Amino acid sequence: MKFGGTSMAGIERIRGVAARVAAERAAGHEVAVVVSAMAGETDRLVGFAQAASPLADRAEYDVVVASGEQVTAGLLAIALHAAGVPARSWLGWQLAIATTDAHSTARIEDIDTDAVLASMAAGSVAVVPGFQGIGPDGRVTTLGRGGSDTSAVALAAALHADRCDIYTDVDGVYTTDPRIVPRARKLATITYEEMLELASVGAKVLQTRSVELAMKEKVRVQVLSSFNDTPGTLVVGEDEIVEQELIAGVAYNRNEAKITVAGVPDRPGVVAAIFGALADAQVNVDMIVQNIAYVAGTTDVTFTVPRTELALSEDVLAKAKAAIGYATVTSDAAVAKISVVGVGMRSHAGVAVTMFRALGDRGINIQAITTSEIKVSVLIAEEYTELAVRVLHTAYGLDA
Amino acid sequence: MKFGGTSMAGIERIRGVAARVAAERAAGHEVAVVVSAMAGETDRLVGFAQAASPLADRAEYDVVVASGEQVTAGLLAIALHAAGVPARSWLGWQLAIATTDAHSTARIEDIDTDAVLASMAAGSVAVVPGFQGIGPDGRVTTLGRGGSDTSAVALAAALHADRCDIYTDVDGVYTTDPRIVPRARKLATITYEEMLELASVGAKVLQTRSVELAMKEKVRVQVLSSFNDTPGTLVVGEDEIVEQELIAGVAYNRNEAKITVAGVPDRPGVVAAIFGALADAQVNVDMIVQNIAYVAGTTDVTFTVPRTELALSEDVLAKAKAAIGYATVTSDAAVAKISVVGVGMRSHAGVAVTMFRALGDRGINIQAITTSEIKVSVLIAEEYTELAVRVLHTAYGLDA
Repeated sequence: MKFGGTSMAGIERIRGVAARVAAERAAGHEVAVVVSAMAGETDRLVGFAQAASPLADRAEYDVVVASGEQVTAGLLAIALHAAGVPARSWLGWQLAIATTDAHSTARIEDIDTDAVLASMAAGSVAVVPGFQGIGPDGRVTTLGRGGSDTSAVALAAALHADRCDIYTDVDGVYTTDPRIVPRARKLATITYEEMLELASVGAKVLQTRSVELAMKEKVRVQVLSSFNDTPGTLVVGEDEIVEQELIAGVAYNRNEAKITVAGVPDRPGVVAAIFGALADAQVNVDMIVQNIAYVAGTTDVTFTVPRTELALSEDVLAKAKAAIGYATVTSDAAVAKISVVGVGMRSHAGVAVTMFRALGDRGINIQAITTSEIKVSVLIAEEYTELAVRVLHTAYGLDA
Repeated sequence: MKFGGTSMAGIERIRGVAARVAAERAAGHEVAVVVSAMAGETDRLVGFAQAASPLADRAEYDVVVASGEQVTAGLLAIALHAAGVPARSWLGWQLAIATTDAHSTARIEDIDTDAVLASMAAGSVAVVPGFQGIGPDGRVTTLGRGGSDTSAVALAAALHADRCDIYTDVDGVYTTDPRIVPRARKLATITYEEMLELASVGAKVLQTRSVELAMKEKVRVQVLSSFNDTPGTLVVGEDEIVEQELIAGVAYNRNEAKITVAGVPDRPGVVAAIFGALADAQVNVDMIVQNIAYVAGTTDVTFTVPRTELALSEDVLAKAKAAIGYATVTSDAAVAKISVVGVGMRSHAGVAVTMFRALGDRGINIQAITTSEIKVSVLIAEEYTELAVRVLHTAYGLDA
């Protein structure tokens, strides 16, 4: 069981978490719990570290920020005792959770479970602070923001847990954002691959790394709410899903901006010149479309970058103008990427056509298209975002 | 160097601490620093633990409250880096600081200094969170409130440090409370024994345990202010003090209450019956005086207890009335204990007489007297506290 910062925000909520853990144990399960820091606490600690020095040593930064989860781990153990449940906290260095030495962005390499398994077998609930471990130098490491999901999945894998339940402030994964489509349905199951595609296009329920790890280690993950008792969404392998839906969900992302480099000489190596310059500046380019050339001997290249990197990208392109030899650069930040995701499209033709037709019928112009094996994404004008999501939700039969 | 919670309260002050450490290192010293949590932080954490359960498991309580010093240790290391000083934090379990298994009241048993000495010899400042260590079971322990002074003295002893500088919010040890006697003088030196007697009668500058440890390990302790650059007070062995003062200081304590048990049968064992009953109830009796009996065959016994234990003591005595066979119990909470302390009185007669005469001349009635080798204490009506302290400060020639 993993509980996020909202679930641990204050003693009353921690007592609620203890009650959930007690119920799970009363149902006959051996339970390990991974906890986040109280909501807001990590921000407070990061603020201290940055105020002390914007270039804070990463190892010392980890010493500071890892304390938030240490506090909630101790408090949950105390609350469990008060609820009559034997429990003890296991700090990252006690288990130990061995990580790489990349302080503040460490990756878990190994978890020693002998002592904790013996303790759990003796009836004690193991309470483990998320987000942290111990590096090869014997110092505290942290996994990066949101790393507690990854801690939970890694611990579940190491313990060979039947399931990893991630309690959060939403009660599962929906076919789309219910704030836009009130008839969005909660999915009973979703595959790892679909979850990854949905996360990468802006549906933030689980940290991406935790889903990748769950897929690699075959950990069955359940996303559910700390604040009600409705069943959540189970994230599993494709083989576990009997009745495959064509499309699992519709996602949107308003954090990208479009750049068009026009009048590019139509010769080998010129596209590499554009994206090489951007890569050197650490810009993450997403969709790329090479348009038909309107002027003979030249072509246009359109692509998207994160909106926060638009100014940087324009600067990079301006400096590389002579090397690339383009005519103009135009940009548009008012775009949105709309994606439909589903493993079912592997075996079904026509999925993309349904999308293009549904959008076209409403007069929504498609500015760019990318596809993966289980995803089709289109770029449209941002003002059509909600309309496009609703239209596609209906077109793929997802409405409740 | 040890810095208390007031010195660590906020990033600006932590930067000030880093500047002091940098100056000490620039003067050619190898430096280890012990830090307290930010002022108020330990109270916040204790509050969480008590809210989670008033009977919080002591081991988990330690996990929660030890985090405050972990945060300031990391932040000071970061601030030192920003000041161009190589530094690293060494958590209790990393050094390691081995303690007993008495969680929340642990005592330091051993400090492994090999790694930290090597690091210091290579030019790095060692930053160590106070108040904590690791128990025989490999879990976090804490030393009890104010334990960071003890951490500092123990580390100084283990490192064979030349001196242990305790930075606090007062700039040294005074001949008496300057709020009562403006002409109180700061002492350049004081012996361990005098410091202990002054602490036990209410002059709270250093935690008593830290002074006992300094005396045992012969650690030269300096008390000085984090907020100015005036020299502090050096706490050392008697042999280091060349010009012995007769009296080091005058202390007062308003936290006691007086109880008189009158009409007690004047026969063997009856005094044991009184104090045995109180000891069974965990009452800490301080001064004891057995008065002359006014009624043949009976005697009166007067003693003091902490004011907070007065109601409990009266209750205990009421229940034991038949067993003791006394006539009446009267009590008075409005009393104060005034003490003069000085190793010089060992070799000088007449110290107590000066005290009794000075108080008598002002019409201050002495209700009880106790003496130790280097201390004379009297009990007086509380309303005379300030007058008595001033009179004695002058009588012993302590005025600046």
